[in-house]
Amino acid sequence: MVFEILETHPLPAHIDRQLLAACVDACADCNSACTVCADASVAESDVVEMRRSIRLCLDCADVCVATGRALARQTDYEHETAKAMLEACVRACGICAQECERHAEMHEHCRLCAQVCRRCEAASSRLLDKV
Amino acid sequence: MVFEILETHPLPAHIDRQLLAACVDACADCNSACTVCADASVAESDVVEMRRSIRLCLDCADVCVATGRALARQTDYEHETAKAMLEACVRACGICAQECERHAEMHEHCRLCAQVCRRCEAASSRLLDKV
Amino acid sequence: MVFEILETHPLPAHIDRQLLAACVDACADCNSACTVCADASVAESDVVEMRRSIRLCLDCADVCVATGRALARQTDYEHETAKAMLEACVRACGICAQECERHAEMHEHCRLCAQVCRRCEAASSRLLDKV
Amino acid sequence: MVFEILETHPLPAHIDRQLLAACVDACADCNSACTVCADASVAESDVVEMRRSIRLCLDCADVCVATGRALARQTDYEHETAKAMLEACVRACGICAQECERHAEMHEHCRLCAQVCRRCEAASSRLLDKV
Repeated sequence: MVFEILETHPLPAHIDRQLLAACVDACADCNSACTVCADASVAESDVVEMRRSIRLCLDCADVCVATGRALARQTDYEHETAKAMLEACVRACGICAQECERHAEMHEHCRLCAQVCRRCEAASSRLLDKV
Repeated sequence: MVFEILETHPLPAHIDRQLLAACVDACADCNSACTVCADASVAESDVVEMRRSIRLCLDCADVCVATGRALARQTDYEHETAKAMLEACVRACGICAQECERHAEMHEHCRLCAQVCRRCEAASSRLLDKV
Repeated sequence: MVFEILETHPLPAHIDRQLLAACVDACADCNSACTVCADASVAESDVVEMRRSIRLCLDCADVCVATGRALARQTDYEHETAKAMLEACVRACGICAQECERHAEMHEHCRLCAQVCRRCEAASSRLLDKV
Repeated sequence: MVFEILETHPLPAHIDRQLLAACVDACADCNSACTVCADASVAESDVVEMRRSIRLCLDCADVCVATGRALARQTDYEHETAKAMLEACVRACGICAQECERHAEMHEHCRLCAQVCRRCEAASSRLLDKV
């Protein structure tokens, strides 16, 4: 639906709208996945081992909300902020995925969360190459 | 994906997880749609007529982020906060949809945004009946 | 500073701006305090005892960001959403304070966080009486 | 209060906590100021001239919420994400301040918002020099 709404914006596109919509959607999914994964990790019996994962999931969720919103705006597109947010997003998703992958065999929510983070990292990287 | 991750949570479900996942997803979509719609309205030539829509879209986006996250957490589920957030979400989505519907013929982004808001209002209402 | 900026809004005030600014500021402080307290609790050696506190702090932080923003907006003030968000905020702050108070002797960050939550609960309650 | 709570964190500080608390507080203030300023600009009679300001204020508010939260967390401090978020914050605050300064004589909320943005830009820059 994000792509359809972006297509109706009164201003001409400054970035490929398909890549843009994919990134906004990936950020939204990543916020949800990381929020659930952090909460599930807090409830695990090995919560002490999950500290780093919890922290990185919380960061990743916050960065994804801000990045998704900043990218969703087309009025007076501001290249440098978009670029800086995409760089932060690629980093936050990548490092969170890396940590969740370490716990993927033990915790299914970490395996799934890592997948969503990797998709968001990829969508943000692709957009970063174009902006 | 939210449903799959929620299913792997170590704690037993206190609410129907399919309804819960539908609501978390609807909140994520509604945040994205309202963020794009507010920005598109700011860029429209009749921006003066769009003031109420802009304001309600910004509120709705913020309420949806908070509601989606609070619901995504299952550890020590807190019934009263969940209920209060769902009530705020139903209200914010409903009033935003109503205003965007008024502009639906003029602005396609308002028509699409109103649809997404109505879906989130419905998903939140369904969950509110169960909590 | 919030009070000074609110005073320069082109539209007439629909609520007492001093109470409003106090609530917006309290929400901002509460988001910061709960974010630090949740993170500190994750790092504590008795993290298993802190699960409920972590979850309630994360909820409270999210609700406070959304409430503070919705209240900060004066254009086309929407009474019902404001009321619903204030009710959610009073609830989220109150329940989080209650849990953090239980850990106040053990963890200084819980004692301080509970104070900030109680202040935000009070500021939101006072505003709720007027809207 | 943020400084006092940060001081009670069980883990040793990895950054100067006074600079850190100043930055977390500045991000919180900047989110509030930009949210009010964007809303006030939407209500101004010259809203057409305020489009760029509205957009940059909304971006700045979102970036400040995410940056303030990521920095508030001390558990498993993640240098690269912190650095990337601070860079995005410095940029978003600086460009928003620049635009609001252009409207400072016409709109008092822009003059005040620009001041808050410049303070947040400075607090984030100072921290960026240390991380």
